Order: sequence, then C-alpha cells, then structure tokens
Amino acid sequence: MSQALVTDLYELNMAASYLRRGMTGLATFSLFVRDLPRGRGFLVAGGLEDCLAYLETFAFAEEDLRWLSAAGFAGDSIGAFASLRFTGDVHAIPEGRVVLPNEPLLEVTAPIAQAQLVETYLLNQVTFQTAIATKAARCRLAAGGDIDLVDFALRRTHGVDAGMAVARLSAIAGFTATSNVEAARRFGLQAAGTMAHSYIEAFADEASAFRAFATDLPGRTTFLVDTYDTLAGVEAAIGVIRELGLTRSLAVRLDSGDLAALARETRRLLDAAGLPQVRIFVSGGLDELDLERMRLEGVPVDAAGVGTRLGVSADAPSLDSAYKLVAYDGRPVLKLSEGKATLPGPKQVWRRMPVTEDLLARRDEPGSAGYEPLLLPVMRAGQRTGPPDTVAAARARLERDLAGLPAHARDLREPVPPQVRVSGSLRDLAATLTDDLRHRGKTERSMPGGTGSGRLT
Amino acid sequence: MSQALVTDLYELNMAASYLRRGMTGLATFSLFVRDLPRGRGFLVAGGLEDCLAYLETFAFAEEDLRWLSAAGFAGDSIGAFASLRFTGDVHAIPEGRVVLPNEPLLEVTAPIAQAQLVETYLLNQVTFQTAIATKAARCRLAAGGDIDLVDFALRRTHGVDAGMAVARLSAIAGFTATSNVEAARRFGLQAAGTMAHSYIEAFADEASAFRAFATDLPGRTTFLVDTYDTLAGVEAAIGVIRELGLTRSLAVRLDSGDLAALARETRRLLDAAGLPQVRIFVSGGLDELDLERMRLEGVPVDAAGVGTRLGVSADAPSLDSAYKLVAYDGRPVLKLSEGKATLPGPKQVWRRMPVTEDLLARRDEPGSAGYEPLLLPVMRAGQRTGPPDTVAAARARLERDLAGLPAHARDLREPVPPQVRVSGSLRDLAATLTDDLRHRGKTERSMPGGTGSGRLT
Repeated sequence: MSQALVTDLYELNMAASYLRRGMTGLATFSLFVRDLPRGRGFLVAGGLEDCLAYLETFAFAEEDLRWLSAAGFAGDSIGAFASLRFTGDVHAIPEGRVVLPNEPLLEVTAPIAQAQLVETYLLNQVTFQTAIATKAARCRLAAGGDIDLVDFALRRTHGVDAGMAVARLSAIAGFTATSNVEAARRFGLQAAGTMAHSYIEAFADEASAFRAFATDLPGRTTFLVDTYDTLAGVEAAIGVIRELGLTRSLAVRLDSGDLAALARETRRLLDAAGLPQVRIFVSGGLDELDLERMRLEGVPVDAAGVGTRLGVSADAPSLDSAYKLVAYDGRPVLKLSEGKATLPGPKQVWRRMPVTEDLLARRDEPGSAGYEPLLLPVMRAGQRTGPPDTVAAARARLERDLAGLPAHARDLREPVPPQVRVSGSLRDLAATLTDDLRHRGKTERSMPGGTGSGRLT
Repeated sequence: MSQALVTDLYELNMAASYLRRGMTGLATFSLFVRDLPRGRGFLVAGGLEDCLAYLETFAFAEEDLRWLSAAGFAGDSIGAFASLRFTGDVHAIPEGRVVLPNEPLLEVTAPIAQAQLVETYLLNQVTFQTAIATKAARCRLAAGGDIDLVDFALRRTHGVDAGMAVARLSAIAGFTATSNVEAARRFGLQAAGTMAHSYIEAFADEASAFRAFATDLPGRTTFLVDTYDTLAGVEAAIGVIRELGLTRSLAVRLDSGDLAALARETRRLLDAAGLPQVRIFVSGGLDELDLERMRLEGVPVDAAGVGTRLGVSADAPSLDSAYKLVAYDGRPVLKLSEGKATLPGPKQVWRRMPVTEDLLARRDEPGSAGYEPLLLPVMRAGQRTGPPDTVAAARARLERDLAGLPAHARDLREPVPPQVRVSGSLRDLAATLTDDLRHRGKTERSMPGGTGSGRLT
C-alpha cells in the first residue's frame, strides 16, 4: 500500500484546488511546537528519518487513484495526483537535538499542493516522536550515570509502529537495550529480557524454574524473584546460583512492592551470600521521577526497565505542534487566529553553548560568531542531501546538547527552559505584515508576543 | 515482514525453554484491566479483530529464524520455532461491549509456549484500542444526539497504525466520519474534510479562497472562517454563498477563540442572513468535557471535530492491563505479587440489563436466568469461529451496553462504576489455592480482595 492516502481529506481537497488553478507557487511550511508541556524544560527532536523516507517515496498508487475517483474527485484532479511526487526542499533540526517552543523542527519548501499534502504525516511523526524522545531523555537524565535503562514499552505503546519508534528513540536517549526483538533487529539495538511470572508458575516451585531457565538459556540469566515472596525469591536465586556454580552476568529482577526497600534488602542478602557481582534490576510502572528518587536516595539499583509511562509519554502524550504556511510565492505569510498566531517567513535557529538562549531569526540573516545553525538542509529537490542518519549520531547530538543545558532547564519537576529570542529583523517583518493585514481590514487580533502562548522574548 | 518478532525477548526465552523441556501442557492466560483510570466509569472493549488476524497468521519467517540464531538461540529452539503456529482457543468479549476491571477481555488457551509468545502483541493491541474506544465512547456520550462527531486525530496519534485504529474505534463509538482518508478506504467509513488556514492565506483574501473552494470542490463546502477575524470570516462566507447561489450542504468551521460565544454569534449572523440551514462545525483541542459543556449550555453547534485528545486518550493514554497465567496443565494457577495478585482459572462474565453489577465466575459454572455471557468462543484450534466482525455490529453492541449503564456509571467527571461480583465458587477456588501456596511456604501475601486494587465485591 502507498502512504499517499495516510492524510486528512482536507489536504487532498486543497491540493486538488491548487492543481486545478495552476497554483504552483513555492510554499514554505514550518513545523514547530507552540508550548512546552507542563514540567518540561526542553524537547528532543525526533521523527525526521521517517519523514524523509516518506517524502522520498511519496506517490499515489493506482488503487489510491481509483478510490479517490470513486470518492468524487474530478478527472483532472486524479490525473494531476497520478504524476505528483515530492520535489521540494526540507530544512530540519536533526534528531537528538534539544529544541524549544517556536523553533521550527522542520521547514518544507515545495509547490504548494505538494507541501500541503504531506502535512498530516509530517505532523504525526514529528509530534509523536518528539514527545517520546523527550520523555526518554528525561528518564536518562533522571537515572544518572549509574543506572542502566532498558526499554520495556512494547506491550503498552499505541500499536506496533509506535513500539518500534519508542525503542529507537530510547536508544537515542542512551538506553542500553530494549525488550523489543523486532526493533533490536531493525535498528541494530541490544535486545534484553528475562522471564515472566507465568514461567515461575509453570514449574513446581521457584527454584525449579530458576534452575531450568539458567540451564536452558545460558548467558541470559536474570531471575525474576517476586512471583510469591520477593526475599524468599532472592534466597531461591542465591541457592540456584550456588548449586549450578553460575559465574557469568547475573541479576535478580524486582517487579512489585516497595522497590527501594526491597532493593536494599536484596543487596544485603546478595552481599551476605558473597554475590556482590549479582546486579539488581527493577521494573514496574516506573517513570523519570521514580528513577530520580532512587538515584538521589542511593537505592542500590543497577538497571531499570521503563515501560508504559515512557511508551505513551504518560504525562504528556502529545505536543501542541503546528504546520503553518510562512511563505507563499515569494512573500512571507502569517496567520492571526486567536492564540494561534505565527511568525512569518523561513527561519533559522542559532545556538551557542551553554544553551541559555537560542536566537530565532529569518533564514536569510547572517549568523553571529560562536553560534551554530540548528536547521540543516536535509532534502533538496525531493532527494536526501546525505545518507540516512544513525542512532549513534543522534545519541551523540543529544548528549552534547543535554550537557550544554543549564541545570534549571534539565530540572524534571519545575524546570525553567532557556529563552528563545526573536531577532530584530524577524520582529520587524512580523510587525510590517501585521500592519499590512490590519490596513486591509482583515483583523483586530494581536501578535504572538501578546498572547502569552509562546516563550518569545 | 512477519510479526513473530514483534514481541519481548523474554517471551522467546520462555518459549525456548518450554519447547526444549517438552512442556506442551495447555496454559490459559487471561487478559484484563486491573483498575479504571481516574474519571472512567467503564471501559469499551477494543482490539480483538487485530488480535485474531495476528493469531491466525502467526509464524516465524526464515529471516526471523536467521536473526534469532545469530542472536544466540540454540539450534533446537530455532527448529521448534520454525514449525510453531498458533493452534489454541480464544474466548473474548467482542469489540464495542462495555467492560469493567478484572473482567477478562480475552482468554487464550494453548500449549504454553504458544500462549506465552503472543502476550506482547495481544496486550499491546487490547490495551491501546480499549483505551481509545473508551475515550471515543465518552465523547459520543458527551455530545448527545444533536452534535455529529468527526475523528480529526490522525496528525497527533502515535504513528500511522494508531491513526487507523482511532478512526475505526471512533466509528464504533458512533462518530459519523473521519478525516483519515486511508482509514475511510480501509474500513468503509465516511471521509470528511474542508480546508486549512494555509488555503485561505494562499489567496488574496478570504472571499477569493471561499469562492475558489466552492467552485473546485462542489459538494464539500465547509468554510473555515477564523484565519483572520472569525465574524468577518462568517460574513465573507455568507457573501460567497449568496454570490454563487449555493444551496447544497453548507457549513462554517470555527477553529480558535471562545468557540461557544463565537458559535452563538455565528448562528445569529447566519440566521439573520436567511441561512438557517448552514451548519456550524467546531474544532480545536476539544475533549469530552468541552463537548458536554457545549451540549448542556445549548451552544448552537451541529458538528465537532475531535482530534488530539481522542487520538492519544490524553487523560488516560494507557490502562493497567495484565496477561496472566490462570491455568496450566489442568490446574488453576494464581500469582500473589504485592498489588498484582490474580484470580485463578478460566472465567466467564455474566451480565444482565441494566448493568448494575456483573458477575465474574469460573468458566464452568452454569449461568443464571436473565444473564448473558460476555466471553464468546472466537477462535478454536487457531481458526476463527466466524467471519470477521464489522464496525456496524460493534457499534450496535456499544449502543446497547451504554443504554444499559446506570447514569452514575456514564457520568464523565465523577462516575460510580457498576460492581463486579465474584462468584462464590471462584472465591472458594482462590482461597483454596492461596492456602495451598501458603502451606508450601511460598508467600505471606494477601489475596486481591484485600489489596484494594480491584473493584471486587
């Protein structure tokens, strides 16, 4: 199946109208997030790779065209759709970079019908993946350097392709492994997993289950100890480790109850048994605040599985993203809808370290010494400008940006995000266009600076 | 690609161990939700169709086996995986039915390796789709009979397959249309859509854009009026309707600002212009509480687009679901982990109208007069027992169950859910097994009734 119908009907309506009228002027659309969700001091860019793969292969299949014809689209529209490909340019902030409100994550410049048709897919991927990448980065910050993190989200993500994206984005955030086997294969990640409670229950007792598992799956031995009574389970694991003389990489997993208290008691039992090398793995409804608490309280946890709350970004499952026309046929454009006003024209975001303040400017403004541009040309005339990005490269970008964020922006509970300063030239352009619209009688509404919806200074 | 690796690594570990040991005993796993999210008085079953399609075609591809071999699985495991198919039975509550905590949505009985391998996919689909179906049903309840609802979620769902599921589930909940074109094609739904603000901006003024749209897309005329100034936009729409003599199905869409106040003023303008037949369509960050407020306040809204908050089930993006072993090799099983204890054995849920109390019983208990069983045999020996379910059938089930729910359970803010009563026979079985486990020294933990986690009475 082609992905051309993975779109909202209005995109097809508008494209049909533009194509019929010969409106082939170049449009620039800017994809950005208006506001940070509560408790977020920054976002992490995600979704670009999937967007580029989609744009490169965009085309209506015969079957799509037949359906559209039956749905009432006129013959000239069907004919125009048949030959339509994405031939535009894309500037974007690479995955893994820290981004702030009103900074374009992605800007598309293409004949307006093309740029419009791809809106739904681009918004879907960038919004969802940026929300997840941000959540994963928060988990990684919370866990600090001493707790390894494993993605356990697949069973609770919104479908299978969401699960694949979560595994990849958590790897970008520095997770060491994923439980998701297909994602491990697809993206070259480390797969990790142990046993479920049902495995323990299928044997006569815990020790029998542990013994069977260690025998059948050498090299993958983490004992799940909380099926009946956690500390008795730890003792059973110790017994089997001694009985079988296990010496390789070993761990016990705690999945219920007061994890902090149980981890301390478990550590004591393991150490007393002369098994300081056996690691403690925790799981069960964890999020970044739980991880931070464990780290700050010095709970002896070596690794944690993070599932549901990561996989749906539970406290912020979506972002207030927008894909807005900022230029058409050579002229900058803005929209003045109440609370949803936009800044006109193609843009660039300039950053210097540490990230106390980004500069949001017109794309054609020169940069300043010491600032680097965040938006890079990633697609020209419908073709990528380089090879596909890698998880490792995105992870390195994220590490660098996180290190450059002030502590108050990294705070997980009451962060103060860096400011986004709008350049004088961009401000002047917005003011001129607003005046012009008012003189033409189109509006009495105020500009974004006045709505309080952005963090523009 | 096969879907056999769309699973957690631990499922493969356990399956490999079971297969090596010749543990082919029949296992029954029960998939249920432990608790209602805050503010929910009921859930709506979703995801079964996708689960059955997955089970029917479950098989490892050659490529899967090569990857697993390289990942360290032994030759005997690879050989056993190669011939593995799902040959089990499934009992399930059909999609669209109202369900309550601890009621099995689905029970799988199969050789334990098979039943274990499919856990991740089944949990993923049922959890996510039940969360979304519930949210959609709440929107439908909130809107009442006078406001048509349209699914606008695709741009904010967690990926593309999530968007398809949201469209289908919202149709089951009684939405009249979806913006999602591929979903409309795939599931035979009504597609709906108008124009974006960018369309208005691409023309010299609003009236020109409205005129062009009405001319190019006869039969699909909803005018988006809030790009610059909403009421001026309404006047422009009125002007174009008169100028072109439009008489077919017409509407204006409000997408920003104080929707209630603007709808009233818009209605006044349209009526004063002699256009009472022009409908008012609202959108923009709506959820069920907004819809209820509009209905209760008599805001003159004819239809509403519901997007982001439906598409991610924003206030409850996941559910506390579980897939638990309840029987193995002829004996009922339970797990006593703190706060996660389970009831043993295969089950049936009995319901009578009105839904003041469901009865959760052992599957082999006889029913009572006036009660109907919710769990039906949907798959036998790996084959469906009937043709695929339809959206229309699921919608009819939901309508009937919602009508049978007491008002206090339908309340959107502070609902009181119906009780789930556990049969005496099931209670006795659980008590006997718990005593047995205690005598075998496995636990000091209490049973579910004592944890406060369920709504068991």
